Amino acid sequence: MVLILQRYFVPEENWRESIVLIHDDDAHHIHRVMRCHEGDRIICNHPGGSAAICRIISIGPAEVRTSIDEWLSESAELPVDVTIAQGIPKSDKFELVLQKGTELGANAFIPVQSERSVALWNDKKMEKKLSRFQKIVKEASEQSHRNRIPDILQVLSVEKMAAYLDKYDVKLFAYEEEAKSMPGKSLGSVINNLEKGSNVLVYIGPEGGISEKEAAVLTEHYFTPIRLGPRILRTETASLYVLASISYHLEELRCT
Amino acid sequence: MVLILQRYFVPEENWRESIVLIHDDDAHHIHRVMRCHEGDRIICNHPGGSAAICRIISIGPAEVRTSIDEWLSESAELPVDVTIAQGIPKSDKFELVLQKGTELGANAFIPVQSERSVALWNDKKMEKKLSRFQKIVKEASEQSHRNRIPDILQVLSVEKMAAYLDKYDVKLFAYEEEAKSMPGKSLGSVINNLEKGSNVLVYIGPEGGISEKEAAVLTEHYFTPIRLGPRILRTETASLYVLASISYHLEELRCT
Repeated sequence: MVLILQRYFVPEENWRESIVLIHDDDAHHIHRVMRCHEGDRIICNHPGGSAAICRIISIGPAEVRTSIDEWLSESAELPVDVTIAQGIPKSDKFELVLQKGTELGANAFIPVQSERSVALWNDKKMEKKLSRFQKIVKEASEQSHRNRIPDILQVLSVEKMAAYLDKYDVKLFAYEEEAKSMPGKSLGSVINNLEKGSNVLVYIGPEGGISEKEAAVLTEHYFTPIRLGPRILRTETASLYVLASISYHLEELRCT
Repeated sequence: MVLILQRYFVPEENWRESIVLIHDDDAHHIHRVMRCHEGDRIICNHPGGSAAICRIISIGPAEVRTSIDEWLSESAELPVDVTIAQGIPKSDKFELVLQKGTELGANAFIPVQSERSVALWNDKKMEKKLSRFQKIVKEASEQSHRNRIPDILQVLSVEKMAAYLDKYDVKLFAYEEEAKSMPGKSLGSVINNLEKGSNVLVYIGPEGGISEKEAAVLTEHYFTPIRLGPRILRTETASLYVLASISYHLEELRCT
């Protein structure tokens, strides 16, 4: 049996040469939930993306003090940076996208207030949700042994998302019915052409889909329509399909 | 804008030559939720796997009577039959696997009572859950425009699942830590070698993973350990990763 060490993201100010300090919820988790003792080892992730095996030198409910044993050279990050722009869906589906999308390697998430989004998220509402969202992506990053926590951006309209984000190398949107009848690119050829380190933006509409006006805006900004298999996927399943496909192609298919 | 017709699975006894009758919840859905009228069209799926566009000839809360306009030749089924054997997970995660797994094209689901499953599902408990589970896969099949509803099998132990199901052409299990250190097959090479129509069984352990004893049983029955990317996935995410990868490889990568 291989021992899997518990992993914690530790803010930069808590790294002091060879000592790493852990506070708040994470200290509680190490002390009360994992019931660790002095001498036990954990993995601490630095916000810069590196990680180290650390040995506990003192433990209490408010602070756990550790010393760095060994820096790790591993990386569990996707070889490309994928941002999921998700049309704001109903109920708590955005949280599912955050959690599963983080496990599957997404780099950032943008909630998009689209024409057919039923819920309305303004900046004030987003502010209230943000701490919960950030907790979800932090925990999912730790659980999936990632080296970094994905960013959660502010709410944008489809127009702003399309125009503002000209920095992406590849921009895609799931547009199932149109994609079926178009001679457009297949997802396979898109992923096959991705270069290591490139930035990919994927827009997924909400339950009601993408309006013709929005599709026109996206096409104008060089978004490519893609098909995600022949079945009609729910909005929250679509982003997971894209991420799993990218991971499969770049991380599992190439290493045969 | 392409019009997407609503889709209903109709039991065999309700197909009477050119007439198809719809009762119960589905009649209510057509009448009250979709607010259809005489002359409107829907798609009826026959349990045999075929589907037809049907025109409503009379409508009421208890029965909707339709006549067949046109048989469809489309298929939204995966080119291979995939059975997901899921180690019984915590809370309602099995329902998430059923819903998303159906969207992604699974053919059958088996709940597996494994050594590290926290919940205990006996036959009696399963009987109570079954009608809810069947509703989930029926609705997900309709929503994703599939031609058939996946089967949900009875609860099996790992030993029984491994031994009983010798009929599968390819048997896989996700065993992340071991897979990383083994010179085993990659998921890419496994999927690349799948022939059209072959039967694939994928076992995913519960939250606590697979015990050494279970891994030995699986290996004895020719299950191949696979890795699902370098990140550690939650149990419910793992089955979705496998299904999305199979769909991507066989339905999107090959049709470039």
